[in-house]
Amino acid sequence: MPDFLPSELVVTPKGGVYHLDICPDELAHKIIIVGDQDRVEVVSNYFDEITHKNQHREFACHTGLYQGKEISVVSTGIGTDNIDIVINELDALVNIDLETRNEKKEKVSLEIIRLGTCGILQNEIPIDSFILSTHALGIDNVGHFYERNVDIETQKLEKAIDEGVKLPKYIKPYLTKASEELNNKLDSAEIKKGITVTSSGFYGPQGRRLRLPLVENEMLDSFSDFEYNGHYFSNLEMECSALFSLGSSLGHKTTAICLGLANRRKKEFTKNYESKIIELIEYVLDKI
Amino acid sequence: MPDFLPSELVVTPKGGVYHLDICPDELAHKIIIVGDQDRVEVVSNYFDEITHKNQHREFACHTGLYQGKEISVVSTGIGTDNIDIVINELDALVNIDLETRNEKKEKVSLEIIRLGTCGILQNEIPIDSFILSTHALGIDNVGHFYERNVDIETQKLEKAIDEGVKLPKYIKPYLTKASEELNNKLDSAEIKKGITVTSSGFYGPQGRRLRLPLVENEMLDSFSDFEYNGHYFSNLEMECSALFSLGSSLGHKTTAICLGLANRRKKEFTKNYESKIIELIEYVLDKI
Repeated sequence: MPDFLPSELVVTPKGGVYHLDICPDELAHKIIIVGDQDRVEVVSNYFDEITHKNQHREFACHTGLYQGKEISVVSTGIGTDNIDIVINELDALVNIDLETRNEKKEKVSLEIIRLGTCGILQNEIPIDSFILSTHALGIDNVGHFYERNVDIETQKLEKAIDEGVKLPKYIKPYLTKASEELNNKLDSAEIKKGITVTSSGFYGPQGRRLRLPLVENEMLDSFSDFEYNGHYFSNLEMECSALFSLGSSLGHKTTAICLGLANRRKKEFTKNYESKIIELIEYVLDKI
Repeated sequence: MPDFLPSELVVTPKGGVYHLDICPDELAHKIIIVGDQDRVEVVSNYFDEITHKNQHREFACHTGLYQGKEISVVSTGIGTDNIDIVINELDALVNIDLETRNEKKEKVSLEIIRLGTCGILQNEIPIDSFILSTHALGIDNVGHFYERNVDIETQKLEKAIDEGVKLPKYIKPYLTKASEELNNKLDSAEIKKGITVTSSGFYGPQGRRLRLPLVENEMLDSFSDFEYNGHYFSNLEMECSALFSLGSSLGHKTTAICLGLANRRKKEFTKNYESKIIELIEYVLDKI
């Protein structure tokens, strides 16, 4: 009896996972994920050799060698619902035998680094900063469908946040830590650090009001003002919470480093996107 | 003083909305939305004339004429976080003056029809059925960020569902009706109807268990078993709740018609995807 039925784990005709349509031998164990499918090629252009390329829907994957390191770049599309797909399928590729549908005995721990863009929540963090996530706070709800196992220190911080920030009535936040091992690799003097807020949309769920009234207009300010034992919110985006929560539960190392495009407090926007994103790509490729 | 600041409503260099990058004169008021970007061209191939094409990230838009009707086909990518982006930006295109950044006095009510694929929740609904949504129940949380205004009958049904189905502890469902006017156009003897469940992921959030334990293993069965005053759950997918909730609050007509690819109860899968999706596209183009 296989551990995973075809209704739970769909395998494509070429023997790949359902949405990504990648086969196990097409994936490296160091993975850079980006939201925008067009950014996959911008990263893989740095590779000395490309060994695999495919795309299905918004999921593009290029695998290759960069200075002797085997790396895959995978686009996730926007949002934590896509991260649910990507993280479960990357894990299935390395830790489930797709032919027998059984869990493998020897587990692989992937290194998954999100390289993205974000909004900045603090006046003190300049536009165009590179921001490394110490934690992700999900105000999406993907993490709530899975059993979670977080340490006491993270639980305490989560509780302080839940009591300290202003959220709409039915929004319950969840906090997860990034991989310290990966963060040590990616850190340097020029890097800013803090807790990343992950939201389930771009407009109302990030406190932007267009024509529809919002349930809680002070949410964003309450994130910017929060402080607890030296922890504060640095930035806001749409993928980290599910990546860190599902990733760490599955035994993978996950973190995120994002370019701050906009300061949401000061209402300022970058004029240097094109050059700064290239700088961030080069920084990450050299550090991992 | 403009109603909407540049930090809330970003306008692209060509004068379009931020993510879709469409300008007001490039959009028709009858809109078919599809999840998969590659399906946009499959639909627009039926047009007698194509007047506009563009793509940015997972958002492709083709506008044209089909038998004298002006129609746009827009891909949304996967998930309600993308629907938050698409519905707010489609509304901004017709109801906000992007130059002055003021709300227009005369409002446009768009017709937005999701043409998608779904899982089936009832034994009695055959694989390959076309399923028209009477309501959408969101177990994502995008709707909870916006003020909602639902009629008493819908509130009663929402309460019965909240008490009658088994959800993880922190998941709070929200119910919205589809447009009756659009549903009357799309109905016929061959169509199945019911409440659509919209989830915030594909694996755990839809009750699929791979390597991670789920908080609630009986969620899917509890949807299939639910019945209240003749209402039952017909299908499960990832976009309708935010589409109907935000769409109706903004004054647009929204509904969804989906091809049932899999019966989640009977664990059966279609063998006719290619031909049936073409049949559904032809059906929708002729009815709207």
